Amino acid sequence: MIHDKLPEVRPNSLEPFLSKVKEIIDDVISGGDQALIDLTAKFDNVKLSSVIASEKEIEESSNSLPQEIKSSIDTIWDQLKNFHESAKPPNFGGGRNGITFGILWRPIEKVGIYVPGGLKSYPSTLMMAGIPAKVAGVKEIHVSTPTKGKLDPAIAYVGKKLGVKAFYKVGGAQAIAAMAYGTSSVTKVDKIVGPGNVFVQAAKFLVSNVVGIDGIEGPTELVVMADDSADPLLIAKDLVAQGEHGPLSFLVLISWSETLVNKVREALVSLGKDRSKENFYLVLVRDQNEGIDRVNEIGPEHLSLYVSKPREILSYVRNVGAVSLGRTPPAIIDYAAGPNHILPTNGWAKFRGGVTVYDFLKPLMYAEADSPPRELIKASIALAEYEGFHVHGESIGDRYE
Amino acid sequence: MIHDKLPEVRPNSLEPFLSKVKEIIDDVISGGDQALIDLTAKFDNVKLSSVIASEKEIEESSNSLPQEIKSSIDTIWDQLKNFHESAKPPNFGGGRNGITFGILWRPIEKVGIYVPGGLKSYPSTLMMAGIPAKVAGVKEIHVSTPTKGKLDPAIAYVGKKLGVKAFYKVGGAQAIAAMAYGTSSVTKVDKIVGPGNVFVQAAKFLVSNVVGIDGIEGPTELVVMADDSADPLLIAKDLVAQGEHGPLSFLVLISWSETLVNKVREALVSLGKDRSKENFYLVLVRDQNEGIDRVNEIGPEHLSLYVSKPREILSYVRNVGAVSLGRTPPAIIDYAAGPNHILPTNGWAKFRGGVTVYDFLKPLMYAEADSPPRELIKASIALAEYEGFHVHGESIGDRYE
Repeated sequence: MIHDKLPEVRPNSLEPFLSKVKEIIDDVISGGDQALIDLTAKFDNVKLSSVIASEKEIEESSNSLPQEIKSSIDTIWDQLKNFHESAKPPNFGGGRNGITFGILWRPIEKVGIYVPGGLKSYPSTLMMAGIPAKVAGVKEIHVSTPTKGKLDPAIAYVGKKLGVKAFYKVGGAQAIAAMAYGTSSVTKVDKIVGPGNVFVQAAKFLVSNVVGIDGIEGPTELVVMADDSADPLLIAKDLVAQGEHGPLSFLVLISWSETLVNKVREALVSLGKDRSKENFYLVLVRDQNEGIDRVNEIGPEHLSLYVSKPREILSYVRNVGAVSLGRTPPAIIDYAAGPNHILPTNGWAKFRGGVTVYDFLKPLMYAEADSPPRELIKASIALAEYEGFHVHGESIGDRYE
Repeated sequence: MIHDKLPEVRPNSLEPFLSKVKEIIDDVISGGDQALIDLTAKFDNVKLSSVIASEKEIEESSNSLPQEIKSSIDTIWDQLKNFHESAKPPNFGGGRNGITFGILWRPIEKVGIYVPGGLKSYPSTLMMAGIPAKVAGVKEIHVSTPTKGKLDPAIAYVGKKLGVKAFYKVGGAQAIAAMAYGTSSVTKVDKIVGPGNVFVQAAKFLVSNVVGIDGIEGPTELVVMADDSADPLLIAKDLVAQGEHGPLSFLVLISWSETLVNKVREALVSLGKDRSKENFYLVLVRDQNEGIDRVNEIGPEHLSLYVSKPREILSYVRNVGAVSLGRTPPAIIDYAAGPNHILPTNGWAKFRGGVTVYDFLKPLMYAEADSPPRELIKASIALAEYEGFHVHGESIGDRYE
């Protein structure tokens, strides 16, 4: 369907799923591995002989991957690794007033990556989560992914490159519960990262009081902001490509060119998209400024700045996960450009970014105060007294007297 | 009480509070300002004439603050600001393979800071959250804090320095709900930051599917790791100071020196702490390595490395919020050294750090691929096909043909 106005809300409420998902989590907490096997039989109709993939299974599966896909993964690997290595922060050390201080970036030790299944398998998602984790220095990467009983060859191949500690052949809320609480086969991890359906996301939300999560990712979103310099056919194709993720995808064109909007509509119609399950929103705005405001209000996952001067507009864009500039196809960011495709959705770009090395690092702060100036000591003691923390003040005063 | 072994678990479960807190959140969603006024009357026994503090009230309250406290705040302000400014990341721009890419750090627009109340008010906490927010470039800072009807002078003074957009004189779960969902007086913010009691933390957890949060902070924790070079009296004082936060505080000494452990015990006894409500855990370990392992297992909020070569040990410490080195009193980090005192507790240091500028910035990723090498285009298309995303591949292929 093609619309000329944005919807009032994007459908992304976890609420209706929470009580069902809570039951699944409780099942896994009390039932452990057997619960995982039972829930996988029930929901995925797959009979698992074991939760963990064996060394042999991983090896054989990986070996069976066609050479063409292996080299494609290798090529993309180097590009993504380079992006994340360049983004890795150095430790910072400084000082002021006789106090030395700084931040040491420490990697998270154990990370669980959820790779969604469904019709196909998604090795690109394992790379998108796993490469920044590895670059950050994560010691143990654990992967949960639904299978039809057998590990996908490309997932196995990427996993071996990552040095994955264990593959759990489990999907859905039960996989998240297992990595959050641990079972005899599944290691309790420190943080869980990755996209997934609404059950997976509801589970991530519910376990986020015992384990770190990257965020809650909903249906995918692409906003194309374009001017007359853009090719309407390519825009239509980009929107349709994003729509491959399913009918809940949020697919938007924003333009101040009525001509362009009409041409994109024609292109979509010629592709049969006026009768599709996916929804396309073609929004005509007054000018570039209104366009930028709309983007920042939406806070989309993906933004394509298909305009003649993309970097000029980029400087005003605040709330978005990843941006493809100019005629760059948004889909190349999904695979190979460098930035992540695990990105905030549903307006979450207002408060967090996509997955980077920072999701796998923690800032450890430190200070050494051998002889701070009298003034700073006095100020600390005065404020401690004001707050009723008398011994705090004393413990500072005693030290420097 | 003094113990010689760590407890099995730290008491920090939100579970028993969730259903009650959910009710409060629902009340605020449906009742708005009136619900805030009613809940404040019910829980805090305070009759609010309005939810927001007026300009006049802020001005008068701030003016009434004694000059000594004003200058103390000013002195500390500059130190904290310097720390966070030094930690602020530059944008990164790079490229590889004919693709330019990078990360632009964008500030969050609207932040809500929760400042706990209780017996006293805590201007230091408002500085600890507000200064990194301001350094990051946050446009609107909103503050919620319980009052006895009247805004605390030091909170008002710090708020004015921060250019706070609005003060809401509300505490507890209802304050978190208001900032997450908005009411007619309270602005819906993008992210909520700050410590608070178990109701506040339970509320932060429950709203974290609609708004960003910094983390869930529980009762405070201090682990002192010390050798014979340390002064047992000063250690005892540091532990007692941390215990001022209440009987749930987690107060630990780890040492491989039996002499030191005994002396700290004596010092605590001399302070009457063998009969106190607070619990002190004095743990003797075999050696330095076991000590480091214990610290990394605990993942404490605060660590005092009161040893002769603190930087040597620091290099092995991974899971901790903030570290004071050598004879630096941990309490000076609570006020004035530079690092934050809003820090992960209950083992959360395993997956996140304390509040820094990074809590108020988001990495926006971008890429521009004018003419990527044939190999990378082919690899992207091959992987898209493997994943069943045919149009993704086409949208890439079309662009570069």
